[in-house]
Amino acid sequence: MNIEMIEAAAKRIDGHARRTPLLTSPFVDEIAGRRVFVKPEALQHTGSFKFRGAWSAVSALTDNALKAGVIAFSSGNHAQGVALAAREHGTSAVIVMPADAPQMKIENTRALGAEVVLYDRATEDRDEIGARLATERGLTLIKPFDEPLVIAGQGTVGLEIAEQAAELGANAREVLVCCGGGGLTSGIALALEAKAPELRVRPVEPENFDDVTRSLEAGQIKRNKSLSGSICDAIITPQPGDVTFPILKRLCGSGLVVPEEDCLRAMAVAFARLKVVLEPGGAIALAAALYHGDEIEGDDVIAVASGGNVDAEVFQMALAKYGNDV
Amino acid sequence: MNIEMIEAAAKRIDGHARRTPLLTSPFVDEIAGRRVFVKPEALQHTGSFKFRGAWSAVSALTDNALKAGVIAFSSGNHAQGVALAAREHGTSAVIVMPADAPQMKIENTRALGAEVVLYDRATEDRDEIGARLATERGLTLIKPFDEPLVIAGQGTVGLEIAEQAAELGANAREVLVCCGGGGLTSGIALALEAKAPELRVRPVEPENFDDVTRSLEAGQIKRNKSLSGSICDAIITPQPGDVTFPILKRLCGSGLVVPEEDCLRAMAVAFARLKVVLEPGGAIALAAALYHGDEIEGDDVIAVASGGNVDAEVFQMALAKYGNDV
Repeated sequence: MNIEMIEAAAKRIDGHARRTPLLTSPFVDEIAGRRVFVKPEALQHTGSFKFRGAWSAVSALTDNALKAGVIAFSSGNHAQGVALAAREHGTSAVIVMPADAPQMKIENTRALGAEVVLYDRATEDRDEIGARLATERGLTLIKPFDEPLVIAGQGTVGLEIAEQAAELGANAREVLVCCGGGGLTSGIALALEAKAPELRVRPVEPENFDDVTRSLEAGQIKRNKSLSGSICDAIITPQPGDVTFPILKRLCGSGLVVPEEDCLRAMAVAFARLKVVLEPGGAIALAAALYHGDEIEGDDVIAVASGGNVDAEVFQMALAKYGNDV
Repeated sequence: MNIEMIEAAAKRIDGHARRTPLLTSPFVDEIAGRRVFVKPEALQHTGSFKFRGAWSAVSALTDNALKAGVIAFSSGNHAQGVALAAREHGTSAVIVMPADAPQMKIENTRALGAEVVLYDRATEDRDEIGARLATERGLTLIKPFDEPLVIAGQGTVGLEIAEQAAELGANAREVLVCCGGGGLTSGIALALEAKAPELRVRPVEPENFDDVTRSLEAGQIKRNKSLSGSICDAIITPQPGDVTFPILKRLCGSGLVVPEEDCLRAMAVAFARLKVVLEPGGAIALAAALYHGDEIEGDDVIAVASGGNVDAEVFQMALAKYGNDV
């Protein structure tokens, strides 16, 4: 993995992925006690940054591989990204999804033209299912994070942050990134290493699902004890990846661990002050900026808001709890 | 009013107002039956396009006038736009607001540094209060829409649409605009006349508050019968302005009149598909694109989503009603 791969991905996605802005609000700054620059990847096609990595990977396929089609396993956001990227490349996508994924994500993935195969998170192994289908049908597997082409696509978020932070005069030292398997986090870290080395990435995770934070502390890969029971479904993965972890270890600051309740509060803040819809996992870096400022360095801070694919019920709950308290 | 005034305003707001993107979603297109390009001014500073006109007017003041400060009447979006524009110019703003305005809007306006003067709608005349304060303190009144500098600022939305529609290959003939007093609508119409004459503006209004539509039909200014009882509070004004109406009459197509319920549905669609928070009045042009397509011409259509300053309760109601039905 190197910066040239990210720059090549940026060329491939140019005109296809959206260049999201860096948003600010004086009200957000007041809560955080510093200026906060929010990169709202919820506004990306399919509602999350995952479209970048998916496009990066699909657009790099050979003609024959493209013709045969792609396969992915995903709880939702990667699924939609791959489905749309495949459709826009004129090929087919099979998506292996947990049966308990948010209904909206399953329906959206189907509506984007993909064939959805459901599995039981507790009793079935998605890797095994994915590998079998890929072999049977000659499909190319687009991994959700532990794949250099995908990391390169997500890294384009970092290229944009480097440019936009300079344009806006952000005096930040840290970029907070919602972290699951580490594809987005490692991609941004690599991009910033080359383009804005004064900025350091801090992975942000939910309480009890802090595999990356513990892995960074230990200097070796640690697993989550559980993979269910979090509202931050988009960023719950068993452990950091074999490709992503060495990058995280080399480039990132320590992890930030945030209670889920803070994600709901941050969703209400993004609603009231930025007018952007965030899902719980997509709000966790903003939550860290808002409510855990004493663990952050720098006059300003940058937070990536990675996605907005949230069911209406969960969003209503966040507003009912915190909508009048921001 | 001419295009040079809008281009001059664009220079003044450059680097201060946000250049909002043009968003699309295959799901939105499917509902509408054509491609829909949405200009989300909810993502503008202070959550609505009003910041553009406010900045345009405040930034054009003489040094002495700027030093003395500005005054505006508004219970909503114009108030916040003027308050922030004044603060960023290092001057003071007095905002005359009805005492029964939502507490949160009063607090937001104060939080943006403005002096809020409350009046009793039943017993006091806001024009008299405003005129007295303006005279006593030498303040410049920033009108909400019937003011060329304000119209010029709102017209910068039209300049951006002309550029972005061409970049994205939109094959549209009409631009749907949420319409109150006509500042945004007339500004966009003037910009498009010069920069994209193939695009025609269609004002969109709520049922029973269709003063612009009836005025355009009659060829002369008609008033609304009532000024209360609409959830589209941001776009309810007594009648089109003396400056705006001749522009609307010369350049716009016929008005579109949309039931308020369609605004709530469009808010749920913007939540689920665009990840943008819209207020009812700010969603009405999108509602027209989604549910009144038979009254629209062109393969594609452009809809301006003018603002997102909505109470959490109203947003929850929209999601409770239509959140699972988009």
